[in-house]
Amino acid sequence: MSKKVHKIGVLTSGGDSPGMNAAIRAVVRTGLYHNMEVFGIMRGYQGMIDDDIVPMHSRSVANIIQRGGTILKTARSKDFYTPEGRKKAYDNLKKHGIDGLVVIGGDGSFRGAQKFSNEFDIPCIGLPGTIDKDIAGSDFTIGFDTAVNTAIEAIDKIRDTADAHDRLFIIEVMGRDAGYIALHSGIATGAEHILIPETKTDIEAVVDSLEEKERRKKLVNMIVVAEGDETGGANEVLSIIKKRLPHLDTRVCILGHIQRGGSPSCLDRLIASRLGYAAVDCLLEGKHNIMIGIMNNKLHFTALDKAVKAKQRISEEWMKIVKILAS
Amino acid sequence: MSKKVHKIGVLTSGGDSPGMNAAIRAVVRTGLYHNMEVFGIMRGYQGMIDDDIVPMHSRSVANIIQRGGTILKTARSKDFYTPEGRKKAYDNLKKHGIDGLVVIGGDGSFRGAQKFSNEFDIPCIGLPGTIDKDIAGSDFTIGFDTAVNTAIEAIDKIRDTADAHDRLFIIEVMGRDAGYIALHSGIATGAEHILIPETKTDIEAVVDSLEEKERRKKLVNMIVVAEGDETGGANEVLSIIKKRLPHLDTRVCILGHIQRGGSPSCLDRLIASRLGYAAVDCLLEGKHNIMIGIMNNKLHFTALDKAVKAKQRISEEWMKIVKILAS
Amino acid sequence: MSKKVHKIGVLTSGGDSPGMNAAIRAVVRTGLYHNMEVFGIMRGYQGMIDDDIVPMHSRSVANIIQRGGTILKTARSKDFYTPEGRKKAYDNLKKHGIDGLVVIGGDGSFRGAQKFSNEFDIPCIGLPGTIDKDIAGSDFTIGFDTAVNTAIEAIDKIRDTADAHDRLFIIEVMGRDAGYIALHSGIATGAEHILIPETKTDIEAVVDSLEEKERRKKLVNMIVVAEGDETGGANEVLSIIKKRLPHLDTRVCILGHIQRGGSPSCLDRLIASRLGYAAVDCLLEGKHNIMIGIMNNKLHFTALDKAVKAKQRISEEWMKIVKILAS
Amino acid sequence: MSKKVHKIGVLTSGGDSPGMNAAIRAVVRTGLYHNMEVFGIMRGYQGMIDDDIVPMHSRSVANIIQRGGTILKTARSKDFYTPEGRKKAYDNLKKHGIDGLVVIGGDGSFRGAQKFSNEFDIPCIGLPGTIDKDIAGSDFTIGFDTAVNTAIEAIDKIRDTADAHDRLFIIEVMGRDAGYIALHSGIATGAEHILIPETKTDIEAVVDSLEEKERRKKLVNMIVVAEGDETGGANEVLSIIKKRLPHLDTRVCILGHIQRGGSPSCLDRLIASRLGYAAVDCLLEGKHNIMIGIMNNKLHFTALDKAVKAKQRISEEWMKIVKILAS
Repeated sequence: MSKKVHKIGVLTSGGDSPGMNAAIRAVVRTGLYHNMEVFGIMRGYQGMIDDDIVPMHSRSVANIIQRGGTILKTARSKDFYTPEGRKKAYDNLKKHGIDGLVVIGGDGSFRGAQKFSNEFDIPCIGLPGTIDKDIAGSDFTIGFDTAVNTAIEAIDKIRDTADAHDRLFIIEVMGRDAGYIALHSGIATGAEHILIPETKTDIEAVVDSLEEKERRKKLVNMIVVAEGDETGGANEVLSIIKKRLPHLDTRVCILGHIQRGGSPSCLDRLIASRLGYAAVDCLLEGKHNIMIGIMNNKLHFTALDKAVKAKQRISEEWMKIVKILAS
Repeated sequence: MSKKVHKIGVLTSGGDSPGMNAAIRAVVRTGLYHNMEVFGIMRGYQGMIDDDIVPMHSRSVANIIQRGGTILKTARSKDFYTPEGRKKAYDNLKKHGIDGLVVIGGDGSFRGAQKFSNEFDIPCIGLPGTIDKDIAGSDFTIGFDTAVNTAIEAIDKIRDTADAHDRLFIIEVMGRDAGYIALHSGIATGAEHILIPETKTDIEAVVDSLEEKERRKKLVNMIVVAEGDETGGANEVLSIIKKRLPHLDTRVCILGHIQRGGSPSCLDRLIASRLGYAAVDCLLEGKHNIMIGIMNNKLHFTALDKAVKAKQRISEEWMKIVKILAS
Repeated sequence: MSKKVHKIGVLTSGGDSPGMNAAIRAVVRTGLYHNMEVFGIMRGYQGMIDDDIVPMHSRSVANIIQRGGTILKTARSKDFYTPEGRKKAYDNLKKHGIDGLVVIGGDGSFRGAQKFSNEFDIPCIGLPGTIDKDIAGSDFTIGFDTAVNTAIEAIDKIRDTADAHDRLFIIEVMGRDAGYIALHSGIATGAEHILIPETKTDIEAVVDSLEEKERRKKLVNMIVVAEGDETGGANEVLSIIKKRLPHLDTRVCILGHIQRGGSPSCLDRLIASRLGYAAVDCLLEGKHNIMIGIMNNKLHFTALDKAVKAKQRISEEWMKIVKILAS
Repeated sequence: MSKKVHKIGVLTSGGDSPGMNAAIRAVVRTGLYHNMEVFGIMRGYQGMIDDDIVPMHSRSVANIIQRGGTILKTARSKDFYTPEGRKKAYDNLKKHGIDGLVVIGGDGSFRGAQKFSNEFDIPCIGLPGTIDKDIAGSDFTIGFDTAVNTAIEAIDKIRDTADAHDRLFIIEVMGRDAGYIALHSGIATGAEHILIPETKTDIEAVVDSLEEKERRKKLVNMIVVAEGDETGGANEVLSIIKKRLPHLDTRVCILGHIQRGGSPSCLDRLIASRLGYAAVDCLLEGKHNIMIGIMNNKLHFTALDKAVKAKQRISEEWMKIVKILAS
């Protein structure tokens, strides 16, 4: 466990998120600073299997800190689920002499890393890179802050039209299992209702409230719904509302993939830089199979098999604030 | 026709578009400068019928030039289609002494103005306010430039993800009858295919080309499709592609209403200011029932009944440029 | 202390910061929810003295959460430094029956509130609103996150030109006493050197390093300097560099007041909403003369006279990260 | 003159401007489409002299249409002013077999191209790339639209603060010889005064007007001044105002180099694509030593020695509109 790491590989896996490039840059430059060799592994685990592995220099990561996406590309690899795939991946790492791995991605990527590391003795460090902020063990994930800011910019634009037309808009944001993007963007844009998977959605109460607002001529309204809400999403909410309030001028807007891209926010660049730097430190110190998160402004280490999708509790206080402030 | 106009009303009608506020501001301040009284008519023609008419001062339009939407709100009025509705509208104008009207909107709004003006002797000046740029008699419409810039910012973000995942994205932009937003945003983002209502879409040729690109490992592709393209839009294009290229990682993104909102671009603010200023000038000069556009950088006047939705020809050269540059 | 508060006033004071409107909105709506009357006091303490005080309704704060600046305006009041001024202010509050005050501003504003509250028995709650993030007792201040994001967007643009020309840019950001904007924006844009008041700036070492980089043909460089750095700012740094490296193509850019304005970021809107909500809660609970901050994600209360400009220690680790990552 | 061109070089010269990359992309891909070889010449004319010349492929220009700056870098070359420098440049072109040149830049770059082409028989096509829009023979220059939009975004932010504090801001924008950025951004942001080199600035009348506005309590004001205005710029205007109105709260903001960078606007990407495409066409048709511009929406050709800095007349109408609308 405490043998010295000399050559490290870095990869991005799962859905891309803004700030991944800043993390790659930090891993590469910190590795080089410690006289390691650093390799970029393309397209996540698939690149390990296909031997799509390239040496990284300081110049390789110049001028990328501000770019969305990931220069190493990302993918979901089916082959890596098979023992043969993982064996092939290991052989390729060995060929290059890579003896440490940094994996930037979500909980699925971490499970892969854990399995791989159990089978072959390669220390793996996970960095939480996902726009959904749904990983246990970190207050932040790389990409979340950018994604919510993209969402509020879009919703601010939609409000211009909602106001001009006295319309109701139902806006669907990303978040299959977690409602954080919906919650934060909904509060930040003054949405009247925020529907998320973490809380039971009483859709009838929502329609009641819309009806009541219509009576007192408050016609501009916005509902922000997470794609993973148990109602099923914006189109399902629309059809329920249409049934009871057919005359209301109601529109749906699904923000979609614009939430994944774009130049990362300051916070995401900082978090990514700090975590990338820490990942190399951890490998040097002989740590392995942990995810590095940030909790209460401090680095926080979680065993990879505990870094699962978090069923986080949404604070009651926030839900109360939503109600009071949007009135 | 040449009787002096003393009190003017201004309204926005139809779909809202960024820059409408800049136009309102210009009408109000130019009117006041000429010692007219200026009234804001709320919610388009409906506000005329409901007597939702407010006096405007210089302060009323302070700090709005940069705002999306329209402070006068907009609506589509069914009542205005009836002779009774229009009579009521006229009576309300008369009550306030309004003897000239500036209508900011699209071709539907102009038809309404024309009809109204034929029945009652009120001179009407139309200003083209629509994100679709589909009005005969003007190279520009208020809102188009902002809408395409919003679209390219969104598509740039989507490309980050497309690149990271080697994916094909089908992106639907607004434009029920006109493909300008699709054409301009598609060229500006390097889309491989641009599907618009003005040209016959050979969807099989598109799929052929995707297949060929797949063979030579060009996997990142973007198709921009106008909502009014004869294929039916992004979801229809998706299902056709899925049939022939089921293994391709293909996603749909419908940009939707974000294209209507947002702070207007410099060009839209300038056009709106210039047209709003000119509208008052025209009323002073006794012109009536014209739309003011800009052609070859000069003001251009079109009779309101000729200011219809233009079946403009998309230049062959642009379609050729698209093919060559996206290769 | 524990007498019930029925009518509250809210004001913004000192330099404006993005998110102040979100805080005002939260105070107003939470107050109304608790059946309080809420008054907006214009232009900070000066409005108290001039009796520029207006009743606030739910509508008064509609559609402002996304606006920069402050609808209550702000000012620095000399009159409030005098006993006569404060007496007059108190009389005006009394006239309106205002028995609680929420002050959104920086440490100077808090000192004023403390003094006022000592003289007249009015409970005051302070909310940290400043782009500089230099208040003891809070990890965040309303406006900081927006300001650093504005700064990095500007610096990203400057880097385009720096890269195109192989130039050195010296960029001055705001921060008279605190280097946080410089530190965060410098890390996030990959600046080679970050000069801040909290650490001793060895300007000769900076020039040495530039000389060394020139030798190895690394010509694109950015130095981010806080206006309060002991060197004196960007122009002073330029003249020092020009003396030793006269042939280097070096430019200065002072970002200035653009850092104060703009639509607030998601984080600033959330913080502002949460703090505004908490301020009313605190008044209801009989708390007085405290600043509410957020530390480790929890509300944190600091006596107003302790909520001073913080001489915060910049972590050694960050300074090391800067060096390694910008190499 | 009409001999066929087989190998072309493309370079960017002078100050960088957003959209240059889109133009490079268009030249490269159109050249390849016509089975030409295309070479990128680094750092303008200096790269020709230093033989810093690289072959360009379709991939070389992938994913750059949205990037600010120029991937070919730019420089002002002193060596190119000498006959020896130009001879060396020619020898290098010959070595690579380059028999046609596309120069993207301003009037200074065109003069260089003209001189070079007179001495050595290489056809040169100029494309107007400058944020200043100061070239005779084109309604647009690559980069201008982006620069004014950057300027108005910055000024919109400054207005937030101006409004909050009732302040006067003097904002300096780029434009050494041309006032277009000042004029357009000033109108678009509702500036009270716009000071440009094309018109005589009556600074005393400006101060009179400020004094009069102060009397009627209109305290928020913005003056936009071009760096090339005969007053000398924002700091000079400030000192004049300070003398007569010392108590006014007046601030200066010099926008500086942020105006050169950033992702190009839709218009700049379109213009750049169209002009880059046309440049190759012109070389194929045997045209030489012309600048391609766009006038009245059509391509417009100007002999390189006529493509000088234009003393364009600012329309009287616009100056009148400024006065009326900002009242």
